[in-house]
Amino acid sequence: MRISELSQLSGVSTASIKYYVRAGLLHEGARQGYNHTEYDTSHQERLRLIRVLLDEGGLTIAKAQTVLAAVDAPDASLVEIMEVAQRALPMSRQPASPWAVALVKEACSQRDWIVEEGNAGIMMVAQVLDVLHDLGRLDLLSLLPAYADAADAVARADVGAITPVKDRAGTANMVVVGTALGDRALQGLRRIAQGNYVRREAAKA
Amino acid sequence: MRISELSQLSGVSTASIKYYVRAGLLHEGARQGYNHTEYDTSHQERLRLIRVLLDEGGLTIAKAQTVLAAVDAPDASLVEIMEVAQRALPMSRQPASPWAVALVKEACSQRDWIVEEGNAGIMMVAQVLDVLHDLGRLDLLSLLPAYADAADAVARADVGAITPVKDRAGTANMVVVGTALGDRALQGLRRIAQGNYVRREAAKA
Repeated sequence: MRISELSQLSGVSTASIKYYVRAGLLHEGARQGYNHTEYDTSHQERLRLIRVLLDEGGLTIAKAQTVLAAVDAPDASLVEIMEVAQRALPMSRQPASPWAVALVKEACSQRDWIVEEGNAGIMMVAQVLDVLHDLGRLDLLSLLPAYADAADAVARADVGAITPVKDRAGTANMVVVGTALGDRALQGLRRIAQGNYVRREAAKA
Repeated sequence: MRISELSQLSGVSTASIKYYVRAGLLHEGARQGYNHTEYDTSHQERLRLIRVLLDEGGLTIAKAQTVLAAVDAPDASLVEIMEVAQRALPMSRQPASPWAVALVKEACSQRDWIVEEGNAGIMMVAQVLDVLHDLGRLDLLSLLPAYADAADAVARADVGAITPVKDRAGTANMVVVGTALGDRALQGLRRIAQGNYVRREAAKA
């Protein structure tokens, strides 16, 4: 198909398609002659992944390049792709205190979780603990086990859904998409469920 | 205390403190005479809440005004404060398809969740379903029950932690802080737990 058809099918403008090719996110089409480059369904699939990374994941072009390079690397393991995807997703640049990091690591080892050094999640949780400390609300640490149980159940389901996929590109795609979309799904469901419990409490009172 | 001491104790610059007063986020201090305004611990506590809204919640000044107005309203119920806080937190402006919204509502009613019209979570989850549809990955809908179970458990813990607080300001504070921080804690824990399960799968293979 020509670039105009690819644009129509993918909902991505021809200018953006050309930009993604120049930035190395999308592989070039086959040149058929002057002003005619042929694209196929592999470009369509790749554009879907690129849009998820940029729109859903909120990645910069540079971060998307890093993730897609991992997806494309013939020898990258699933673990490596997941770590690259996790690190590329936007997160706070603030450092966490050694106290908070130690607390998170201790909580993980109590659950017998295998934790790699530099996992993006450690800093995210540690920063939350620091804020609770600053707010004088360390009583809320009592919620940590409930949150960790929930995260454990979701992650087990996530990884269970990933492993049955056999082809590498599909797996990589799913890990990247799942990391970004799963966060949002969980946030949304938490808000709905909070609404439910607050209303039930209000009805009781 | 004078503004310089308040600045030092709160870690907020005097320029920002003055700005928050002008913007109506922070109540004025007591004027003691020319160039001397007296602040107290109520200002310190309010500054903490403001910083959480702006830094952790990622709220704009305008959105923070809305949330703080709900916190200050003498007759606002806990349900109302929670809804205002949930809606103020940054989220995608994209609409969701009627198909996805209906699917989310159906999943909620199957769980016997009381869902208010316009809950921020419905659109968040529906948008995720739309993306999965566009990606041709509706098979991942099989994960929805695991996510909903996890969200249910976390929300029950959230609301259980809120209700024991007796004073209104403390409750409002906690709802606002908890909505923003809880998302981040859950995201981080999910990443750590994913790392654990992926490594265990890799070890098995």
